[in-house]
Amino acid sequence: MRTAATELLGIEHPLIGFSRSPGVVAAVSRAGGLGVLGATAYTPEQLDAQLTWITEQVDGKPFGVDVLIPAKSVPGDPSNLIASLRAQIPEAHVKFVDELLAKYEIPTDTGKALFTDDLLSGLAGSGAEALLEVAFRHPLALIANALGPAPEAMLKLGREHGVPIAALVGSPKHAQQQLERGVDLLIAQGTEAGGHTGTIATMVLTPEIVELAGETPVLAAGGVASGAQMAAALALGAAGVWCGSVWLRSEEDITPREIKEKFLAADSGSTLRSPTRTGKPARQLRSAWHDAWESPGAPPPLPMPLQPLLVNDAWNRIDAAAEVGHPGALELESFFIGQVVGRFRQLEPAYDIATGIVRDCEARLREVAALVTP
Amino acid sequence: MRTAATELLGIEHPLIGFSRSPGVVAAVSRAGGLGVLGATAYTPEQLDAQLTWITEQVDGKPFGVDVLIPAKSVPGDPSNLIASLRAQIPEAHVKFVDELLAKYEIPTDTGKALFTDDLLSGLAGSGAEALLEVAFRHPLALIANALGPAPEAMLKLGREHGVPIAALVGSPKHAQQQLERGVDLLIAQGTEAGGHTGTIATMVLTPEIVELAGETPVLAAGGVASGAQMAAALALGAAGVWCGSVWLRSEEDITPREIKEKFLAADSGSTLRSPTRTGKPARQLRSAWHDAWESPGAPPPLPMPLQPLLVNDAWNRIDAAAEVGHPGALELESFFIGQVVGRFRQLEPAYDIATGIVRDCEARLREVAALVTP
Repeated sequence: MRTAATELLGIEHPLIGFSRSPGVVAAVSRAGGLGVLGATAYTPEQLDAQLTWITEQVDGKPFGVDVLIPAKSVPGDPSNLIASLRAQIPEAHVKFVDELLAKYEIPTDTGKALFTDDLLSGLAGSGAEALLEVAFRHPLALIANALGPAPEAMLKLGREHGVPIAALVGSPKHAQQQLERGVDLLIAQGTEAGGHTGTIATMVLTPEIVELAGETPVLAAGGVASGAQMAAALALGAAGVWCGSVWLRSEEDITPREIKEKFLAADSGSTLRSPTRTGKPARQLRSAWHDAWESPGAPPPLPMPLQPLLVNDAWNRIDAAAEVGHPGALELESFFIGQVVGRFRQLEPAYDIATGIVRDCEARLREVAALVTP
Repeated sequence: MRTAATELLGIEHPLIGFSRSPGVVAAVSRAGGLGVLGATAYTPEQLDAQLTWITEQVDGKPFGVDVLIPAKSVPGDPSNLIASLRAQIPEAHVKFVDELLAKYEIPTDTGKALFTDDLLSGLAGSGAEALLEVAFRHPLALIANALGPAPEAMLKLGREHGVPIAALVGSPKHAQQQLERGVDLLIAQGTEAGGHTGTIATMVLTPEIVELAGETPVLAAGGVASGAQMAAALALGAAGVWCGSVWLRSEEDITPREIKEKFLAADSGSTLRSPTRTGKPARQLRSAWHDAWESPGAPPPLPMPLQPLLVNDAWNRIDAAAEVGHPGALELESFFIGQVVGRFRQLEPAYDIATGIVRDCEARLREVAALVTP
């Protein structure tokens, strides 16, 4: 299938696979799509090592990187910044999280280094640009910004290296802003998607963004995890699809097995949009965590970046305890996932998932073509 | 286009148009789709007259009826029932609604008869079966129940008259219940739809319901108002589409012009799912009404049928005042509508909307077919 997106990205199939797992990224690119590494959780050194590894795996095939960089970075020493942010968190919020973890008897000592502040320093200041500089040392086919307007540094580096720049959007207004900044590819992400997402469904959002975007290609994201859904996205006018959640049922995905098992047991109504992890509404699996934040007397979630500063250590403790089968941690355990989780049946290699989606999409397009060709 | 739905319903195009406006129903059927009249707001006598009129308009082409009947009807005298329900409404709720209307200076005397209790008696008891009996005196091609399991009386009359029975579902669980009752057609309605709706998006829900339904045809509903969206629904595996919101931009729709003008000005993010009109979450245009119900100190909405008993007179007053351009009423004014409202640009005849959707769907299917046929 040739579309404006396959031409722009130099790929065989208009299937773009976003994942924080390098093994998934390499597999999607090897399958003829484009793997895109979510770099947010990496330090610059880690990102460098992962991109080197991916380059070795894909045999010259293209891949991309997705970062999460604020449009305006905050100047100054990241450690001072974080201390000043921490001081803004109300005591009642800290107490609520402490009591919630105590109620579920989550151990304090996880035996693992916690990486909250490293990660947040990447978000908050010069760390973000360091990630970008590392990324552009590798042969990228795409750089994407996951949230908010594409930052100047990304636009500049993209232009210098001839790398197309993509942006995720959840509304026509955001699409218009990104088009004005000159991005090369828009990803229209519907409310059914995992992670940060708006309220407008893919079925409605995609044709609106396609109409706005004119010559700029649009990928559809949210609700796309099968060949039929990829075919539907193309019928909506998308030049391809951006899939994220589906890789969480791949063998290569680095998400702990305990979370993957919760995903396999979930149905399509088991998710919710909640700001209780990042401070912005993000779709995730509903768990006892969300029930607690919705219970009477719970404090309102704080804005980004205060809410992650408040809860990230808690999540490190929950994840670590869940990994050793702690019952309370398994009740609280959750992760970002879209509504497509309802059809997760078993784990498979990411390469097989990618080739299966493309094969089934082509078959479905032939079926619907028969409706109009006598 | 021939699908399992066109065969079942005896229609030319797999486009089913739901509307409370008889003029829309007749136009969709004349265009080769199936118009389905939403009968809930009619008395049995009114329904009889409207179905007689539609039969005269469609020149033998098929049409259907949609009712909203509780699975268990409540025995006894409807007027006693309503009095006992009214007694369950807390005083604080009555006060909240009174103060809200006073704040926006909504006149008490509308100069129109209010029909709340007539309408609710239809919902509550024998009135519902009277509607059904009237409906089956006419040459129906489909009878649908909009909410909850298909009631016994509908199943029985449908079988006797050889009329296919359809049910709207918003989750796999509800679909399973309807299949067990033996319905002939499922309508998978995504969260982006107007009116009563669940949380799962059409892109995700449709293939799940298609898989569950086996040989039973499935229509996709929610987010379908254009040829591209109809093509996407067919790609998802639906045997056709069920469109409701799109007719609210038709000239024949009976919704007051003031509401239609709010729709033409809205964007796809202007709706919300709210239980503040019917007691169950229903998608509608956001207005000052919803802001008030979300403000600090507002009471929680009551369950169905108490919430409509609480607010229906208020809505009659708001609608009547909005019709004569009352500024406060125009701020509060709203109606049930899906996210597709964002692309409403101008009013058109319903016949032109229907034929345009079919024509554009066929064109889009030919375009995507070209992706897989060299």
